[in-house]
Amino acid sequence: MATAALKVAVIGGGSSYTPELVEGLIRHHHEFPIQELYLVDIEEGRQKLELVGALARRMVEKAAVPIRVHLTLNRQEAIHDADFVITQIRVGRLPARVRDERIPLGFDCLGQETTGAGGFAKALRTVPVILDIAQDIQNLAPNAWMINFTNPTGIITEAVLKYGGVKNIGLCNLAIGTRMQIAEMAGVDRALVDFEWVGINHLNWARKIRVGDTDIMPLVWSMLNNAASVKNIPALDWNPVLLKSLGAIPCSYLRYYYMTDEMLRDEKQQARTEGTRGEVVQRIEQELFELYQNPQLAEKPKQLEQRGGAYYSLAAVELIASIYSDRRDVQTVNVRNGHILPFLPADASIEVNAVIDATGAHPIQLELPVPTSMRGLLQVVKAYEELTIEAAVRGDYGLALEALTLHPLVTSGDTAREMLDQILEQNRSLLPRFFA
Amino acid sequence: MATAALKVAVIGGGSSYTPELVEGLIRHHHEFPIQELYLVDIEEGRQKLELVGALARRMVEKAAVPIRVHLTLNRQEAIHDADFVITQIRVGRLPARVRDERIPLGFDCLGQETTGAGGFAKALRTVPVILDIAQDIQNLAPNAWMINFTNPTGIITEAVLKYGGVKNIGLCNLAIGTRMQIAEMAGVDRALVDFEWVGINHLNWARKIRVGDTDIMPLVWSMLNNAASVKNIPALDWNPVLLKSLGAIPCSYLRYYYMTDEMLRDEKQQARTEGTRGEVVQRIEQELFELYQNPQLAEKPKQLEQRGGAYYSLAAVELIASIYSDRRDVQTVNVRNGHILPFLPADASIEVNAVIDATGAHPIQLELPVPTSMRGLLQVVKAYEELTIEAAVRGDYGLALEALTLHPLVTSGDTAREMLDQILEQNRSLLPRFFA
Amino acid sequence: MATAALKVAVIGGGSSYTPELVEGLIRHHHEFPIQELYLVDIEEGRQKLELVGALARRMVEKAAVPIRVHLTLNRQEAIHDADFVITQIRVGRLPARVRDERIPLGFDCLGQETTGAGGFAKALRTVPVILDIAQDIQNLAPNAWMINFTNPTGIITEAVLKYGGVKNIGLCNLAIGTRMQIAEMAGVDRALVDFEWVGINHLNWARKIRVGDTDIMPLVWSMLNNAASVKNIPALDWNPVLLKSLGAIPCSYLRYYYMTDEMLRDEKQQARTEGTRGEVVQRIEQELFELYQNPQLAEKPKQLEQRGGAYYSLAAVELIASIYSDRRDVQTVNVRNGHILPFLPADASIEVNAVIDATGAHPIQLELPVPTSMRGLLQVVKAYEELTIEAAVRGDYGLALEALTLHPLVTSGDTAREMLDQILEQNRSLLPRFFA
Amino acid sequence: MATAALKVAVIGGGSSYTPELVEGLIRHHHEFPIQELYLVDIEEGRQKLELVGALARRMVEKAAVPIRVHLTLNRQEAIHDADFVITQIRVGRLPARVRDERIPLGFDCLGQETTGAGGFAKALRTVPVILDIAQDIQNLAPNAWMINFTNPTGIITEAVLKYGGVKNIGLCNLAIGTRMQIAEMAGVDRALVDFEWVGINHLNWARKIRVGDTDIMPLVWSMLNNAASVKNIPALDWNPVLLKSLGAIPCSYLRYYYMTDEMLRDEKQQARTEGTRGEVVQRIEQELFELYQNPQLAEKPKQLEQRGGAYYSLAAVELIASIYSDRRDVQTVNVRNGHILPFLPADASIEVNAVIDATGAHPIQLELPVPTSMRGLLQVVKAYEELTIEAAVRGDYGLALEALTLHPLVTSGDTAREMLDQILEQNRSLLPRFFA
Ligand SMILES: [Mn+2]
Ligand SMILES: [Mn+2]
Ligand SMILES: [Mn+2]
Ligand SMILES: [Mn+2]
Repeated sequence: MATAALKVAVIGGGSSYTPELVEGLIRHHHEFPIQELYLVDIEEGRQKLELVGALARRMVEKAAVPIRVHLTLNRQEAIHDADFVITQIRVGRLPARVRDERIPLGFDCLGQETTGAGGFAKALRTVPVILDIAQDIQNLAPNAWMINFTNPTGIITEAVLKYGGVKNIGLCNLAIGTRMQIAEMAGVDRALVDFEWVGINHLNWARKIRVGDTDIMPLVWSMLNNAASVKNIPALDWNPVLLKSLGAIPCSYLRYYYMTDEMLRDEKQQARTEGTRGEVVQRIEQELFELYQNPQLAEKPKQLEQRGGAYYSLAAVELIASIYSDRRDVQTVNVRNGHILPFLPADASIEVNAVIDATGAHPIQLELPVPTSMRGLLQVVKAYEELTIEAAVRGDYGLALEALTLHPLVTSGDTAREMLDQILEQNRSLLPRFFA
Repeated sequence: MATAALKVAVIGGGSSYTPELVEGLIRHHHEFPIQELYLVDIEEGRQKLELVGALARRMVEKAAVPIRVHLTLNRQEAIHDADFVITQIRVGRLPARVRDERIPLGFDCLGQETTGAGGFAKALRTVPVILDIAQDIQNLAPNAWMINFTNPTGIITEAVLKYGGVKNIGLCNLAIGTRMQIAEMAGVDRALVDFEWVGINHLNWARKIRVGDTDIMPLVWSMLNNAASVKNIPALDWNPVLLKSLGAIPCSYLRYYYMTDEMLRDEKQQARTEGTRGEVVQRIEQELFELYQNPQLAEKPKQLEQRGGAYYSLAAVELIASIYSDRRDVQTVNVRNGHILPFLPADASIEVNAVIDATGAHPIQLELPVPTSMRGLLQVVKAYEELTIEAAVRGDYGLALEALTLHPLVTSGDTAREMLDQILEQNRSLLPRFFA
Repeated sequence: MATAALKVAVIGGGSSYTPELVEGLIRHHHEFPIQELYLVDIEEGRQKLELVGALARRMVEKAAVPIRVHLTLNRQEAIHDADFVITQIRVGRLPARVRDERIPLGFDCLGQETTGAGGFAKALRTVPVILDIAQDIQNLAPNAWMINFTNPTGIITEAVLKYGGVKNIGLCNLAIGTRMQIAEMAGVDRALVDFEWVGINHLNWARKIRVGDTDIMPLVWSMLNNAASVKNIPALDWNPVLLKSLGAIPCSYLRYYYMTDEMLRDEKQQARTEGTRGEVVQRIEQELFELYQNPQLAEKPKQLEQRGGAYYSLAAVELIASIYSDRRDVQTVNVRNGHILPFLPADASIEVNAVIDATGAHPIQLELPVPTSMRGLLQVVKAYEELTIEAAVRGDYGLALEALTLHPLVTSGDTAREMLDQILEQNRSLLPRFFA
Repeated sequence: MATAALKVAVIGGGSSYTPELVEGLIRHHHEFPIQELYLVDIEEGRQKLELVGALARRMVEKAAVPIRVHLTLNRQEAIHDADFVITQIRVGRLPARVRDERIPLGFDCLGQETTGAGGFAKALRTVPVILDIAQDIQNLAPNAWMINFTNPTGIITEAVLKYGGVKNIGLCNLAIGTRMQIAEMAGVDRALVDFEWVGINHLNWARKIRVGDTDIMPLVWSMLNNAASVKNIPALDWNPVLLKSLGAIPCSYLRYYYMTDEMLRDEKQQARTEGTRGEVVQRIEQELFELYQNPQLAEKPKQLEQRGGAYYSLAAVELIASIYSDRRDVQTVNVRNGHILPFLPADASIEVNAVIDATGAHPIQLELPVPTSMRGLLQVVKAYEELTIEAAVRGDYGLALEALTLHPLVTSGDTAREMLDQILEQNRSLLPRFFA
């Protein structure tokens, strides 16, 4: 990649996660010599942007790397001629997340940020905004790579693949985290661990887990129930018979599908006591921003780990460095399916291992067929995702109703309709395509 | 079809439905000149077989058609050199059906004969028996056509397609009934009504409903909510927004998916008052067999209509007559998918329009793509069906658990496991492959 | 089909074939009560149109059927509000055909009207004209059915499917002729004969040839080499080992692929003696038009049979009558592939059995997989056809070169390039998209 | 790969190519510390084996690497517990190759070792022998990797994938050679050059040729016609219009398809003067073996380059070293298609870029669809290959006739049949499955 001065724009730069990202950019500066870092946010995020931006500047200064940190509310300025545009936006901010969690719980359905009716509401709000950003990139930086960290990543990536017209890869920290966790279990360096990552964002299984040509599935199965889950998701024991029949390790989010009743019970309990995850995160963020204000602080504070984005920065920097350097290594990303999962549409986004080079992410064929029950679950959830994207793009009530009725975690019928009506009503100002 | 003496064997010949079938064979004798009709049942059904058989003989005699009615408990004798073998068996008889309905209700899940956990239990019991029958046909009548009326027809047909090694078509009366109902709505002869029937057994939609080249979808939509449902299924109003977004009319069984909560509420209420549908049917059957005993009775009694099998006989006779006469007309049947629904496996059974000729049923390509939400639902239910067939054939607990966990009408996790354990326990003597 | 006055337009109405068509319309008037028959031609065809039109009027009068025959050079007038538009055009007329035959022979390649480089040249000339006609139909008779008899029918039909935007079915008399021929061989009524017709236009195989459920392939194989070929194609003996390995009967045009050397030798010999087929046809046409002039003639003259279009009229009338009457019978037509031949693109035209009803032609799934060598030949020729359509639509030299280089009957390299250059040069005035 | 003592068996170890391979094993010994090298040949090759083996030992000794070179005529001994089995056999040796070249020339068809009727004859002889070797591996070294260098590599690899039951990768030096050639054109290190390699063995195109994210297709097109071809194939100029329309660089073997006439003329000329390539190679080999006899020679002689196997050793050692070390780099190999080329059968062998790790070769999805004319050619040649494999495995004359009739480089009809008969007759002792 021949570029005068390597420029990265971070949309949603005022996020509490940003120090994590900045730390990564500093640490990998020798591989990826970024010069201009634009943090951009919207007017409502100005204060957070300033706090985070100031911390970022102190971090860069302390590390003595030649990165210039720019803060702006002008998205076009940030995007103009950028090499990479990282999106980490949250339309409606945390209060919208809390609504996304509370509405489904009112119907005895799972209320979660990315999965089920909550993720559906978030997608309806976010898809049009992401497509606006893509439009800016088309106009102002047509050769830039758009790197999506915005949730629900699978849906967002697919919307950009279908309607965005820009080079686009979606990222999640789940696969890299799983790799770390397994390396620790096996007591080896993470570079020695490998697996096939099968599925779509937040609906994944790891299989063929190995060190060299040694199969370590039995080891992982045996240690799994003792391992910690990701921050967002209650730890509940897997049914070992189910896992062995699947021949795989499910990602944490599959608890919502495989332990629906138990997870719902747990969530409702948590909502009554400490609050929903969104409410907890609001408190964590408040504490983080208090820390960020400290003018002595010039590094990522330890407390950021509670926020849940472990390895987020690592995933981002490894991806952009491999594109930058034409590295041709293998990473796990969200990309266009083509025929990798031949039972999903070719233009769907999937999350699998891919070779990363200067021309993007090239998914690798799976070695074994996908078992029937993985396939069926992926198909129904992907169909829900497709309907959600179409509903969001067109502002179409009927498609939105079809999407929610189809979702396996929504008991259908009157419930779906009433829940949809509440979602639309409570997000009225954030859903202009539905209320035009 | 050149055959010395046209012979039909009816496995499960003691069924209360048989007089319906016999009536059809009599009425269409000019097109399909059957000479030997074997009604076969098992020892436990001997009494019913004798009652039904005697009635059948009186019917034939009254109609003065040259059909010889044979009653036997020897399946091989019935199958030997048959031209058509019709299966209408119920492994475990009605008490098993009642268990299939009661177990899921105990977990707040739908309890139904063919859909959900009830249909799953019925499939586990039935698949091995049907494959035994297919084996007999292979040995004793390799050129015979197996016509499956046995529920769950889609699963049973697919099991025979995959493992049976005989010529095999599955039948349901839902499509022919829908045609009748729409003809009545439109006030035209049923021969003038046509539609595309999309889906798999008991998970179907009718679209492109027309008389000649006149689209009558609007008429049907407007009249639909006033129309009666099939006997087995409570009538609940469809959401017109959903139907129009789908662009189709769902079959009655789709109420289980589109109105899950309401249907469950209804079913539980019914189970508490008049009993489950199986319990109601037990009473209906008792009354029917009392009628059948009447030596004056020489025709199908009117009360058989309550049993729910309207047009069953018509469907059966039209199918076998078209095969017999190489008629090349279009009927709705359960057949191997191939690529008609390109998003389902090629070896799946589907239920669609097909040309019927002397070499069997040849499905017709759909005119329009299947909408996303139909596709997603079909895919997840078909995956459940595939897992169920494999579990039944191998007696595999893990696959059975995967099947039940995947089913959209089973809240997963502990529930699925506990429900499975109850199903296995309560059907122990009927599931030899699981308890070998 | 509810229409005030049934109107049919025949584009290329001055063709010598028209009396054949008119005879069919008269004979089937009870099933298909056409009232307005428009014969339209271009200025250069005025004289032929008048001769043929006068004969058509005498035929109608003699038969005493209420068909009004209109002659016009105004295509829009003919198409306006038509129910069916039949195309049977020949862009460049017979002199262009003779060039199509002579150019390839100069390179020791087959020179034939529809197959090889000759068909390629004809397609380049014809595709844009057919799309103009389709445009007129869109504007003036958007509900009309376009019935293509224009060669190369497969390419023409596919071009309209891809770019025409009108309801469109392609027809060839080969399948109906084969049915007739086999019925005669088997000594039965043609309604009793059935087979699967596999392939694309002029590249077909018949298999599963049967009477009822009796396989008559052995009979057909044994009689085949004695049977007459179609008029256009020299009769050469098939290799029985090849046919049995294929498990099918190839159509006559497959001689060009299976006996390439022998056919070429034969063609060159014929070109030297009696002239190419186009030259022979020119003489036949001259004789026919002399007959047509006879004011006493009020029926199709026997000599028309030499022209080669046996059953052309029967095929056309059966198709339009089935659409008109929503007959739902099975006919062999050129339609969109979808997934009937899953190894060809979904938007390709194929020629197979289809159910014909008021909404068009619905192809029927094949019973058995297509053998490897049929598949390979179909794939390469279809790829050639796709390239030819794209080249014709865009006037793209590179694609035209790719098409001709790929064709199995064109020895590639310098030959393909030189032949292409000659074709373009000799058709300059007829290929405006290449010389814009 | 945890193995006591790394063992490699080379079947056909007496080949004149072996010193090339041995040189590679020596040079890369630090990455791939082979300990036991078994060179195995058949009785007829004993003398060559001894000469080559002695040279190999001198090379190893001179390089002072701890490789033990074993010479044997006992294939089972060589294979037993091997980690890698490299096949480089030539059934019937060079005299059979010369016959493969001479027979087609007698029919004015291309006579070439791997392409056309020559490759067909070689495949018929070789497939059964390769499957015997695979059987030995199954029995004696079930975890071993079979690395096929045996031509026609695509067919051989596919035969093993379908019938061999062992881990198997096919190799050709064409892609690595192209990479070298382009690096030289572009004046950069070969590690910086990348492209998509599309197709099947000896029927490939390179596209997306780039250095980093800079497209260098224009450079390559401009330099192409000056570049040398591979040793086996006469250099003829490409048509630049064709190449640009294809958007790719064809491999040298595509000259047989794109310049059929010219290549045939050239070949016939060469056959008359210096002899066929096989005859030339016989002379080269003689000279090589004379050199190999020299007890002073302890390195690969320069003259081996004339033999045509440039980079053969590099390709082999890079592949086995990446498997051994779980390197996860990208190499070009022959593997099972799956859905990488979605228009070819899933169980076909294809030649594309793949990630190489300890579990084998995992092909990478192509970025862009394959253009129509590449697709058509690949499909017809792959269909020919499938037929050839089936014919070879079953010894089936009809399938062999279908294969040869379908091949684009064989003018069909009597020619194909007569050529097949000559091939069978002249290889009678080497084709036991056809003469059982
Ligand atoms: Mn994530
Ligand atoms: Mn039914
Ligand atoms: Mn034709
Ligand atoms: Mn090679």
